[in-house]
Amino acid sequence: MAFKKVKSSDRHINQLARIVGGSSSILYRKEDLLAYDCDGFTIHKALPKAVVFPKNTIEVSEVVRYCHEHNLPFLARGAGTGLSGGAIPLNEEVIISMVRMKRLLSVDLENRRAVVEPGFVNLKLTNSISDRGYYYAPDPSSQYCCTIGGNVAENAGGAHCLKYGVTTNHILGLEVVMPNGEVIEIGKNGIPDEPGYDLLGLITGSEGTLGIVTKITVRILKNPEAKQTVLAYFNHVSDGSQAVSDIVSAGIVPAALEMMDKVAIEGVEAAAYPVGHPKDIEAVLLIEVDGISAGIDEQIRQILDVCRNRNVKEVKVARDEAERGRWWANRKTGFGAMGAISPDYLVQDGVIPRSKLPEVLSRINQISNESGLRIANIFHAGDGNLHPLVLFDARKPGETQKALEAGSACLKVCADVGGTITGEHGVGIEKKEEMRFVFSDEEIKAQTDIREVFNPKNLLNAGKLFPAPGRCAEVKKEIKAAASS
Amino acid sequence: MAFKKVKSSDRHINQLARIVGGSSSILYRKEDLLAYDCDGFTIHKALPKAVVFPKNTIEVSEVVRYCHEHNLPFLARGAGTGLSGGAIPLNEEVIISMVRMKRLLSVDLENRRAVVEPGFVNLKLTNSISDRGYYYAPDPSSQYCCTIGGNVAENAGGAHCLKYGVTTNHILGLEVVMPNGEVIEIGKNGIPDEPGYDLLGLITGSEGTLGIVTKITVRILKNPEAKQTVLAYFNHVSDGSQAVSDIVSAGIVPAALEMMDKVAIEGVEAAAYPVGHPKDIEAVLLIEVDGISAGIDEQIRQILDVCRNRNVKEVKVARDEAERGRWWANRKTGFGAMGAISPDYLVQDGVIPRSKLPEVLSRINQISNESGLRIANIFHAGDGNLHPLVLFDARKPGETQKALEAGSACLKVCADVGGTITGEHGVGIEKKEEMRFVFSDEEIKAQTDIREVFNPKNLLNAGKLFPAPGRCAEVKKEIKAAASS
Repeated sequence: MAFKKVKSSDRHINQLARIVGGSSSILYRKEDLLAYDCDGFTIHKALPKAVVFPKNTIEVSEVVRYCHEHNLPFLARGAGTGLSGGAIPLNEEVIISMVRMKRLLSVDLENRRAVVEPGFVNLKLTNSISDRGYYYAPDPSSQYCCTIGGNVAENAGGAHCLKYGVTTNHILGLEVVMPNGEVIEIGKNGIPDEPGYDLLGLITGSEGTLGIVTKITVRILKNPEAKQTVLAYFNHVSDGSQAVSDIVSAGIVPAALEMMDKVAIEGVEAAAYPVGHPKDIEAVLLIEVDGISAGIDEQIRQILDVCRNRNVKEVKVARDEAERGRWWANRKTGFGAMGAISPDYLVQDGVIPRSKLPEVLSRINQISNESGLRIANIFHAGDGNLHPLVLFDARKPGETQKALEAGSACLKVCADVGGTITGEHGVGIEKKEEMRFVFSDEEIKAQTDIREVFNPKNLLNAGKLFPAPGRCAEVKKEIKAAASS
Repeated sequence: MAFKKVKSSDRHINQLARIVGGSSSILYRKEDLLAYDCDGFTIHKALPKAVVFPKNTIEVSEVVRYCHEHNLPFLARGAGTGLSGGAIPLNEEVIISMVRMKRLLSVDLENRRAVVEPGFVNLKLTNSISDRGYYYAPDPSSQYCCTIGGNVAENAGGAHCLKYGVTTNHILGLEVVMPNGEVIEIGKNGIPDEPGYDLLGLITGSEGTLGIVTKITVRILKNPEAKQTVLAYFNHVSDGSQAVSDIVSAGIVPAALEMMDKVAIEGVEAAAYPVGHPKDIEAVLLIEVDGISAGIDEQIRQILDVCRNRNVKEVKVARDEAERGRWWANRKTGFGAMGAISPDYLVQDGVIPRSKLPEVLSRINQISNESGLRIANIFHAGDGNLHPLVLFDARKPGETQKALEAGSACLKVCADVGGTITGEHGVGIEKKEEMRFVFSDEEIKAQTDIREVFNPKNLLNAGKLFPAPGRCAEVKKEIKAAASS
């Protein structure tokens, strides 16, 4: 690709283009920018100033340094699958797209680690090493397209996080471009629990507000010797919920322990991957155990016993990998499946103590009745991570607002029973105000003080993660004042 | 206990005594303070200004507020078993002893968590819940006396951290008195992965430099259904080391995978808990697997096969819980056992990639030869955490210094092969300079900048964790200047 200069009337565009290698590595015309006005959270939209596509850490660092010097707001973006609006350019940011930094840099099987660029797609890592018997554990439902860089920003979870932990448990090292353009390395040697403060943990899940990750060392795991998957149908949510508690109480740690309610089942059965779930039941459990072969059969026997003791209507074990695959496709496309039964839907992401599920579902049912909107529930039941999906029609006046309010009310319920407002999707712009359900002003200030250490000009992804009424506008004003002074 | 006023010539002592409830809750005479001049790292000693014994969070907060207002340096101390000097009063600190805050506040079996005060002894937690089938996983060798508050400060590990993770993986919530006396709660509801920055991870392992923990919510685990323990003797370290790699490669995650070398064996066999290890071998492995019964036998069979393939001299499975207990007592008292073969010893705490063990041991052997000091090696082999124990005689002029240098040289070897300088004992004052082996000045500055957010006056445990030549003296000077102004 030959280097083509950009000649925009905006000198910043020209300079940024020069840094990243010309016109093929920058978008700045309004029609091109429209594709970047939101991410997986589609309710709020805003246009960036430009989108640049750096190829390496040096280019990222130079872009950041330029923005820092010229007081241009900026943020990083992976595949744009985030569900809380973390990559939406609220402040006319320069978006630094990581999609061209997508290499698998190294694999070290002996010490169980791999190094990737942030734009490397999650599932590709497992696909690259599965023939040698290894895999990467965190598996968000979007794993076929989301990037590991985005996973780090959001501390992404997934169905198998019950046994294996979320992204932060699998990150051994990071190269980070700080908001002033400096490059630092944390956990250089991929050794976990380094001395000093846990910066790795601090940056993972900081939703793109502390720095831009440009290289990631991850832990890889050996494929389990065996895997078995169970489907169990229950006439009553309370029975399904009790079965979840019983399985955990029996000392079994399933690799995954998922639940869907009646409305969710209606959706997944109407969409692309139906598997024939009965429609007259209140709950389906999808339970997977893995490990060495010798123990698996015994665990499955115990799980079947638990289900039968809790009045299961029907329970079955996947006969083969193909059937297992179909069950997981049905579950993993659960959010999108809502499109088959509703023009629009809003995903929420609360966490509750497992034992509170029946109470929470009944209160969510009440919210549904009061708002007049149907709510489906998909639940990582094992770790208490509940996804209420509020179904609505954005074309009907006022219904989007009603859906947002219903979603927020669901999170309030989660916080009220001793839970929290996000398990894996992050806060972004969507749940900023809901942060007040779980943090006091002082606790939020302790966090924004930390942000200030890393990001003193607050040019990097400002207005996200923490509530600050009117602060976005304020920041823009400050930036303009600084720029014109 | 009746309240007795203290009448010292030092007004601060009188005021502090007033806050904590009189003369029975403060020590300030030199003869009393001598017991507090060091912790488990006995090479450096310094006297505190006073030791106070608060009974609750309010008293801690008031003591801290008083110190903050009057520019008195202060630090928190648990059982004083720390091995890197984190509780040594370098700056004539007021020591806030947590030993009277030692209650088990609540146990919630259903949601698998317990709340303790910081002075609660680690092993007491397991003892309090074992009859109901639960336990607390992190098990430092000092667990019979160390406190959970101290474990949080140091992010303590233990033999079973290979499978279950270190302290940070078991902390769900903290109440913290900040260096200005404010009290914050993090992870209030014991829900992990709260939104916002990971303050829980940041404070855990910050070695008492960011705040004082006054309440801790921990994760508790169900006792595994079964447990089996194996002892394997090898004529060559390289065979033992290769057996470790083979076990991990086979996809087995043992609950513990420990190694001791020839000098370490000599020590443990000469001390209080000998078990009859042969003295002519180079390495003993202690391997434990746990989980549901059905899988255990198969795992043991695989482990025995691996050992035989690697020329094991003798391998045996513990016949019963009593034998298992004896093997563990032999291993867990390994540090102290060095006292049976040497007047003094210095414990080091490096981390290396598992695969580098033979190379590292040979380089440590060279350090031993050059220094003329014997070095024993106790190794959490599964997670690469190596404890060289430098044996010396402090009565011989210059030998303490020689031991310190040999210890530092061992850490340099660990860093050189791609490892790091501490796995579980922390940096404290002992390894401050060695931080330079693994961090650049910028990376250290990023961390001290964070400290400044929490601890802007640097009155709390100053001069620890980070290298800063002359800084301790500087801090004292600043403090004095501030106090007299």
